[in-house]
Amino acid sequence: MNRVYNFSAGPSMLPLPVLEKAASELVCYGDSGMSVMEMSHRSGDYEAIIQGAEAKLRELMQIPDNYKVLFLQGGASTQFAAVPLNLIKRTGKADYIVSGQFSGKAFKEAQKLGYDVVCAATTKEDNFDHVPVVTRDMIRPDAAYVHMCFNNTIYGTKFGYIPDTGDIPLVADMSSCIISEPVDVSKFGVIYAGAQKNMAPAGVTVVIVREDLLDYAEEKMPTMLEWKTMAENGSMYNTPPCYGIYMAKLVYEWILDLGGLEEMKKRNEKKAALLYNYLDSQNYYIAPVKKDSRSMMNVTFVTGDAELDKKFASEAAKAGLKSLKGHRSVGGMRASIYNAMPYEGVEKLVAFMKEFAKENPKA
Amino acid sequence: MNRVYNFSAGPSMLPLPVLEKAASELVCYGDSGMSVMEMSHRSGDYEAIIQGAEAKLRELMQIPDNYKVLFLQGGASTQFAAVPLNLIKRTGKADYIVSGQFSGKAFKEAQKLGYDVVCAATTKEDNFDHVPVVTRDMIRPDAAYVHMCFNNTIYGTKFGYIPDTGDIPLVADMSSCIISEPVDVSKFGVIYAGAQKNMAPAGVTVVIVREDLLDYAEEKMPTMLEWKTMAENGSMYNTPPCYGIYMAKLVYEWILDLGGLEEMKKRNEKKAALLYNYLDSQNYYIAPVKKDSRSMMNVTFVTGDAELDKKFASEAAKAGLKSLKGHRSVGGMRASIYNAMPYEGVEKLVAFMKEFAKENPKA
Repeated sequence: MNRVYNFSAGPSMLPLPVLEKAASELVCYGDSGMSVMEMSHRSGDYEAIIQGAEAKLRELMQIPDNYKVLFLQGGASTQFAAVPLNLIKRTGKADYIVSGQFSGKAFKEAQKLGYDVVCAATTKEDNFDHVPVVTRDMIRPDAAYVHMCFNNTIYGTKFGYIPDTGDIPLVADMSSCIISEPVDVSKFGVIYAGAQKNMAPAGVTVVIVREDLLDYAEEKMPTMLEWKTMAENGSMYNTPPCYGIYMAKLVYEWILDLGGLEEMKKRNEKKAALLYNYLDSQNYYIAPVKKDSRSMMNVTFVTGDAELDKKFASEAAKAGLKSLKGHRSVGGMRASIYNAMPYEGVEKLVAFMKEFAKENPKA
Repeated sequence: MNRVYNFSAGPSMLPLPVLEKAASELVCYGDSGMSVMEMSHRSGDYEAIIQGAEAKLRELMQIPDNYKVLFLQGGASTQFAAVPLNLIKRTGKADYIVSGQFSGKAFKEAQKLGYDVVCAATTKEDNFDHVPVVTRDMIRPDAAYVHMCFNNTIYGTKFGYIPDTGDIPLVADMSSCIISEPVDVSKFGVIYAGAQKNMAPAGVTVVIVREDLLDYAEEKMPTMLEWKTMAENGSMYNTPPCYGIYMAKLVYEWILDLGGLEEMKKRNEKKAALLYNYLDSQNYYIAPVKKDSRSMMNVTFVTGDAELDKKFASEAAKAGLKSLKGHRSVGGMRASIYNAMPYEGVEKLVAFMKEFAKENPKA
């Protein structure tokens, strides 16, 4: 077994001890006599797993009691529709911060559903190389909510601050930064995240929603997208994605054992610093993102030569550093260094980058 | 490792060789250097898996070329909304056959969305102890589709025939009977199924849809529920439930290796016959379903005494025969004997039933 360092933006690396534990109990879980994959979701064994996952996530993120935690399906893309369907009735309109491709998709989805939504701020004109500075006066005072994407996976940017929206609920897609560092949940009305970056295999979506925001769902909407229905049924209105939730629980336990989100933040900062410091120390590679907007999870860079970029990703893969190709919409390279990426992986990457620069001088 | 016989209605047993294979390659898949759970869904390794899953299912079910095969999220419950959202525009109205709880939920969901839907036939007045006989004259000639649930998990009934709806597309929820026996796909407009009974762990929904039915989607609907969008993106409009699809592929391969759906049908008939023949041979247990509507997958029975039923399920569990309690809405017992349940499991169950009847005489 030769494990590689996998820099994929998601699905992405999972902690090796978690994978090993999952493998060891895949056929038979504890004394249940069956795989977690085979358990009735109504069984005592499985209820302990899903309730355990919620409890661990609450502990990890210090989620206040007046927030519900849901484990859903459909990815963040389903939440792009669920957010307006569940919230817009508050006032009938909503404001969007467009800081990259996925926040743009969320905005378009609300438009597609026919709602009165506006783009309150964007950095599209700068090719999303930084996040916008959002102030209260940019938000319509009667907006039902403000939607943002906290970390922009494709461009490698992150909000270094939480926008102040006053009493207007802030809704954040945190797919690519959730549980990478502590965050003050109470500053948000809703946090949602696809699990396949920092939490679990693809197929689980976590939604953390303040209870008072559960009462605005449209009547004519798919029941499966109603947060309130899911909250009232403990995420088991229908069969949940049981195995993914079990994996999430193992990941939460792994982080808690390491010391929680403060420790995770230290480790992630150290990894990101190693890579950004190298990028800042040379001029072979260009890091397009402005320093105050740099993501701690997704580090983007280019050589400035598309052919060289291609060669880089291909040779890196041969050296056991996989999935470094940037998103197909922007090109270049992207190193996603989520929680499960060890420091050694980033060391190997930087060593490879130095070697590649030496052996491939630019014309 | 002491594996039990798990009679859960879903999630339910998976074939032991499939679980063992999954466990053996969970940490490292082939020479990829990573778990299937960690792979980018855009990677060559993963594309081979999802395309392989589709190819195997097409082979298994002999799905005609003019049908698309989608691997989605959200369970059959999400399709309860997706069906009208994708199809009702054909004519503006639709007809439902209500033969149990889930077909009733599908009907209610279409009503909730505000559509002109009617119940064309139901056996509710007989407590769903058989399926209705549906003839063409019961269907509105201008219905956009007719919706049915082919096997009713909770009541243990199954359609012994495919309703003739003429040119009106027949839409069937086959969650609890898909790939249990051959079925003529060309008789249906749409077949959909949650995977967690016969195909894979929970979290994957298979939708098989005739291509000419992809052009009726509502404009103002969640993009993630649009079959056409999913078809055009090979089920990868967003990140699919990658690991569940991998498991489905292993299950499809297991069935093909055994001899395909004809062989599966033989095995399933043999298991069901063992149980039904025993039920018909005695009068301690009562099988409430009429003979012509009996499910091959879910066998329901009662003692006629709620306390005895409770004792039965509890003592059976101690004897390694788990999850025999009937659905909470109907009580009694239910033995779900899907593809992965070995014949020996049913033999043990019948032996236990005989023993229990002897040791617990009725008053």
